[in-house]
Amino acid sequence: MLGPGKAELLARIRDTGSISAAGRQMGMSYKRAWMLVEEMNRAFRAPVVTSTRGGAGGGGAEVTEAGEAVLRLYRAVVERAAEAAAVELAELEAMLRPAGAAGA
Amino acid sequence: MLGPGKAELLARIRDTGSISAAGRQMGMSYKRAWMLVEEMNRAFRAPVVTSTRGGAGGGGAEVTEAGEAVLRLYRAVVERAAEAAAVELAELEAMLRPAGAAGA
Repeated sequence: MLGPGKAELLARIRDTGSISAAGRQMGMSYKRAWMLVEEMNRAFRAPVVTSTRGGAGGGGAEVTEAGEAVLRLYRAVVERAAEAAAVELAELEAMLRPAGAAGA
Repeated sequence: MLGPGKAELLARIRDTGSISAAGRQMGMSYKRAWMLVEEMNRAFRAPVVTSTRGGAGGGGAEVTEAGEAVLRLYRAVVERAAEAAAVELAELEAMLRPAGAAGA
């Protein structure tokens, strides 16, 4: 339903008021950003983003109240999970090759 | 580095002694299963799976001690995270459309 990519997109839509601007900030095509928004809107009972196309300002997008709640809950999940599993995550990370060496 | 798919593949390799059998159980092509194993072996300092191709038994695969540790830690992370974020996860789930209704 939601992972780090979609959550970041949602936060950036809230900050920019634009799906395409939010996607662009993440190096995403306009089409992909829209697709992800549509996936989220389908997944949740209430839409997380509403948008208007065209118009004086060239259209815009808004994160709904439900979208704000989803974002808040998602961040709480990530934060609590990271705290609770900090020891095991650190052990796992210590087993990883240092970043950048993976392709060696 | 590791998500539910790779962790499950690792567990099934341990259970079956075969990368292709493990992948098949998950509806994965032989090529994809090998690719995922190679990604894991590159990501970690020590290989998580060792394999022999051909031979009397048609080759086989074994999860290494490092692989066992990775699997154990991954499961602990998931378990602790789910416990710690149970309330927020339940709230998020309640906001989702019932399964199967997403395509409606």
